[in-house]
Amino acid sequence: MRYIEPMAKLIEHFRALPGIGSKTAVRLAYHILDMEPAQAKALAQAIIEAKEKIGYCSICFNLTDTDPCAICSSPARDHSTICVVEQPKDVVAMERMRDYKGVYHVLHGALSPIEGIGPEDIKVKELLTRLYDENVKEVIMATNPNIEGEATAMYIAKLLKPLGIKVTRIAHGLPVGGDLEYADEVTLAKAIENRREM
Amino acid sequence: MRYIEPMAKLIEHFRALPGIGSKTAVRLAYHILDMEPAQAKALAQAIIEAKEKIGYCSICFNLTDTDPCAICSSPARDHSTICVVEQPKDVVAMERMRDYKGVYHVLHGALSPIEGIGPEDIKVKELLTRLYDENVKEVIMATNPNIEGEATAMYIAKLLKPLGIKVTRIAHGLPVGGDLEYADEVTLAKAIENRREM
Repeated sequence: MRYIEPMAKLIEHFRALPGIGSKTAVRLAYHILDMEPAQAKALAQAIIEAKEKIGYCSICFNLTDTDPCAICSSPARDHSTICVVEQPKDVVAMERMRDYKGVYHVLHGALSPIEGIGPEDIKVKELLTRLYDENVKEVIMATNPNIEGEATAMYIAKLLKPLGIKVTRIAHGLPVGGDLEYADEVTLAKAIENRREM
Repeated sequence: MRYIEPMAKLIEHFRALPGIGSKTAVRLAYHILDMEPAQAKALAQAIIEAKEKIGYCSICFNLTDTDPCAICSSPARDHSTICVVEQPKDVVAMERMRDYKGVYHVLHGALSPIEGIGPEDIKVKELLTRLYDENVKEVIMATNPNIEGEATAMYIAKLLKPLGIKVTRIAHGLPVGGDLEYADEVTLAKAIENRREM
């Protein structure tokens, strides 16, 4: 006997979550037992509701509790500009900026021959369908600035060029507030390459 | 708009847990969305069940899903020895040792005049009732080796002395595998004071 069964089960469930080790799982389980019953129930309910209510937008494949999502159905957004990102969390990062007024397309991954992820495993076909159906003027490739992200951006750019759609890539350079001293050489090289006149 | 409502709610719930910051809460919420529906439901169910099934043993006040708890109702345990601890997690630590065959009493706290915790706020009265009812020979005070724990141990020892019950305190000294160099002076002083002949 170490933990009584319902407790052991709860600890096991917490431990299965990312970044939660054994000790944190135990601490969380004790915390649940100390909670008001209504509060614990609300947490359980929030987990169930999130699973039940949240799905993917049938247009942009972002997470949403309505279909189409709030961004795709907003008349205030510029539907002729699509920003292509890898994950729903990238949309959140873009929206945090508050500057971008276009719409999104979430690929749900990036091309990775090593991991066996090809164009058919991410939402590339769905992006092409949108370009035929909607009056799109510009596609901004905002995939991650790493090998997979770059490859994905290049692949999609090549696909779209023949359609006569402007394809752009978000700029690489030094992060604002960053320190030149600590910048890696690849970023620094990109920053020099993309320098602009003042 | 930052997160859709069911997502924001889930993040908020996770953030309310101890040791979970904003970023971890977001990561956990995304993980929930990526989970198999059955798995997410099992987690929610585990939370609800832990709250519903786990209560306190009416004898020792340890966490239990049966009443009396498995330890209090076991004929294999020595019911004439009671180990007094502050919290249910201390029972788990004692049981991990596998050496102790007596029973427990969980105080659910320690005396702390600063925090306004007096004898009536912890399970002292319930301990006394047990001593009158059961045939107890020894009470081992295993409260924490800090000011509150020591004060609680001393207070209870004073109460029990007139009843003719042997009251003992767990030993202070250097932790096994510890390093003399890094021991604090109070622990070292205790270790010297409690030295035994070899």
